[in-house]
Amino acid sequence: MAFSPALARLIDAFRVLPGVGAKSAQRMAFHLLQGERAGGAKLATALAEAVEHIQHCQRCRMFTESDYCEICRNERRDATRVCVVESPADVMALEQNTDFRGHYFVLMGRLSPIDGIGPEELGLNILRARLADGPVEELILAVGATVEGEATAQYVAELAERYGASVTRIAQGVPVGGELEYVDAGTLSQAFSGRRPL
Amino acid sequence: MAFSPALARLIDAFRVLPGVGAKSAQRMAFHLLQGERAGGAKLATALAEAVEHIQHCQRCRMFTESDYCEICRNERRDATRVCVVESPADVMALEQNTDFRGHYFVLMGRLSPIDGIGPEELGLNILRARLADGPVEELILAVGATVEGEATAQYVAELAERYGASVTRIAQGVPVGGELEYVDAGTLSQAFSGRRPL
Ligand SMILES: [Zn+2]
Ligand SMILES: [Zn+2]
Repeated sequence: MAFSPALARLIDAFRVLPGVGAKSAQRMAFHLLQGERAGGAKLATALAEAVEHIQHCQRCRMFTESDYCEICRNERRDATRVCVVESPADVMALEQNTDFRGHYFVLMGRLSPIDGIGPEELGLNILRARLADGPVEELILAVGATVEGEATAQYVAELAERYGASVTRIAQGVPVGGELEYVDAGTLSQAFSGRRPL
Repeated sequence: MAFSPALARLIDAFRVLPGVGAKSAQRMAFHLLQGERAGGAKLATALAEAVEHIQHCQRCRMFTESDYCEICRNERRDATRVCVVESPADVMALEQNTDFRGHYFVLMGRLSPIDGIGPEELGLNILRARLADGPVEELILAVGATVEGEATAQYVAELAERYGASVTRIAQGVPVGGELEYVDAGTLSQAFSGRRPL
């Protein structure tokens, strides 16, 4: 005996989520069907809309359903300073915990030749064009202190210096080996304001 | 600065899932957008279909998109034995780990007067009709050994005895205070075959 086809499809589909195995997928499906059908329908709609319409900002690679994200469209933000981060979550963490009001560049990953992630996969050609075009005076590296984060920082720093931008890096208040996303607010704020020239 | 509207809606919508807070919701959204868009679209479709079409089997309350579930439609199964469980997951666990080939009745919960869950919420009127109509000879209680599980077992046992069915309960190999869903296969199999008259 197996679950009905629609239920089996739902449980199977939940397994696409990070860290969700067979048991969690089942629990999620039952939870929604038992008392959260309206919430389930809302999630279905939000998901369908998101995977269809959300793309990367053409300037900074942040997720957005417009051509340019809210930050890139905001003319009051300082375009001479660009903060390079690994993920959209890092942008949110910095926005919430620092007074930085410049621009961002979201790598959507880290250099990892073994996994086939090189400069192009991180959109560094877009960043290069921005450095060549624009008035970038300070490029702030806010990548994690992992081995791959270090390699990425090194690569981006060399690129920026080639175009005459000064490069800083947020202070190593970030725990060694840690992911930026999980750093507490105070540490992150301090690390940001304590950034030093590279 | 906030996430774009579509992204904010997606992150918010994920929080309907059990145990998913703000951070996990964000991680799920980014994970799908970064490399699992096809999987995300599939999940959206499966969810929309499930919340619209999946209902309860009219005979046993199992989830199904048909009027009657696969087990209730299977004429080769023994309709004289009905196993009462708390959740659809328990049906799956018993099907996979025991040789029981009778029918089920899924309570979709436990008696909990404080939470407003009485006999009607557990569909016990449907079970009563089945006991009154049918050739139920043995009613097997396979509910968890929690306080509410005990009260539920007591109630269902009295109901079944009123209609002349003999009542058994799966052996207390199930850990006291434990949920049936999390019991390992061997314990569950042993507890089931060791069931005794109540
Ligand atoms: Zn942007
Ligand atoms: Zn059924």
